[in-house]
Amino acid sequence: MIPKSHPRHSSLSERHALEAGVRRGITHMQGFIAHGRGEAFDYLIGEKTTAAAKNAIRAAAALLLLAKQPVISVNGNVAALCAKEVAELAAAVNAKVEANLFYRREKRLKAIAAELKKFGVDALIANGKTKLPQLASKRAIVSREGIFSSDVVLVPLEDGDRTEALRRMGKRVIAIDLNPLSRTAQKASITIVDNITRAMPLLVKKAKAMKRMPAADLRKLVASFNNKINLKQSLLIIRRGVR
Amino acid sequence: MIPKSHPRHSSLSERHALEAGVRRGITHMQGFIAHGRGEAFDYLIGEKTTAAAKNAIRAAAALLLLAKQPVISVNGNVAALCAKEVAELAAAVNAKVEANLFYRREKRLKAIAAELKKFGVDALIANGKTKLPQLASKRAIVSREGIFSSDVVLVPLEDGDRTEALRRMGKRVIAIDLNPLSRTAQKASITIVDNITRAMPLLVKKAKAMKRMPAADLRKLVASFNNKINLKQSLLIIRRGVR
Repeated sequence: MIPKSHPRHSSLSERHALEAGVRRGITHMQGFIAHGRGEAFDYLIGEKTTAAAKNAIRAAAALLLLAKQPVISVNGNVAALCAKEVAELAAAVNAKVEANLFYRREKRLKAIAAELKKFGVDALIANGKTKLPQLASKRAIVSREGIFSSDVVLVPLEDGDRTEALRRMGKRVIAIDLNPLSRTAQKASITIVDNITRAMPLLVKKAKAMKRMPAADLRKLVASFNNKINLKQSLLIIRRGVR
Repeated sequence: MIPKSHPRHSSLSERHALEAGVRRGITHMQGFIAHGRGEAFDYLIGEKTTAAAKNAIRAAAALLLLAKQPVISVNGNVAALCAKEVAELAAAVNAKVEANLFYRREKRLKAIAAELKKFGVDALIANGKTKLPQLASKRAIVSREGIFSSDVVLVPLEDGDRTEALRRMGKRVIAIDLNPLSRTAQKASITIVDNITRAMPLLVKKAKAMKRMPAADLRKLVASFNNKINLKQSLLIIRRGVR
């Protein structure tokens, strides 16, 4: 255990959670590299949830509450770092949860589903028959009742190609991505530029708090959110971080 | 094999080399996170060796050639990514090579030494009796005939504490670090802000080319190099990268 007082407590805890994820067959080693990239950007934004991220989280909560068929896509890093929050969010916004990997492996998908099950979530796993159009390789595989039929997809830590394919299908995509310049960040409908370990608990809190808001107010919130402007604010913070 | 024409050829090759490193017991999973952090900064500097990095490489080659007891410190990522270049550089500047880990494990040190041996290098491994002063934990352990007695140490991918400890002992430290804001980058005598897979071959080339340069000229080269100004140039490039 790392003492809470340690200056790098959260970042060390995350690393240990990922290591545990590898041991349990949930996380792929390549997920560590993605996490490291995130760490670098987190460092540049000051390792805290910015005002821009808070706005994006609010809009994301509204969009998830308005959705008819919201789906939360869960990969190895997400399962290792915030399976509990995924379960809470799914309950709060009545979303389906789909285990979905960049490097698709049956065994790992099952390990992720088992991890989510601990928190009461019955995750969907694609059977391989349904694919996103215009996207090559195994990355195109999604579940028909899950991502394929969804209107809003939350993709914490997704790759650019898949985000684009989802957008082409007319879906609204909410991404959590620490790099505001990434294709995922640029192509998503709402991009939360924040560490998922900070953003997910806040998103759960917001979704619960906004649950009784009238739909018209939620729609106003979503309509007033401009992702391009929001991303620019995050970039500005990073630029200031590079002093 | 990844085709050379692939736009992400070098970054994918690096990842595969690290995965192979893990399989052979050379690289630690945490090394993947460090690599990911590097990837993010590499992305921001445009994934090429900048003019600033080229100047730092030239000064580093000069300093290594002038050194009485130069040592190259090799960790798991360095061994996985450029064992061959370490061997070539050691031969060119007549340096010792020391296997040295942040997470010290006898087994991994031996695996690294075995990897270096493939390229004709007899690497030093610390026996645990000699330590850097004022540095807690196993990270303080160095080899008496290697890093401890050196005047110039090349530390590709080193941590800040250890870099500071080496500097306190009066050693000149050459770091290769993609984050110009890191403590290692800030504390080193010469910081090469570049990907080690690009910087190491260039450093080898420079060291070979400058081998017959008069010592006075080498000294002039080192004296004219200002690490603070050089780091500022790298930061400027990153700031421009964040648009």
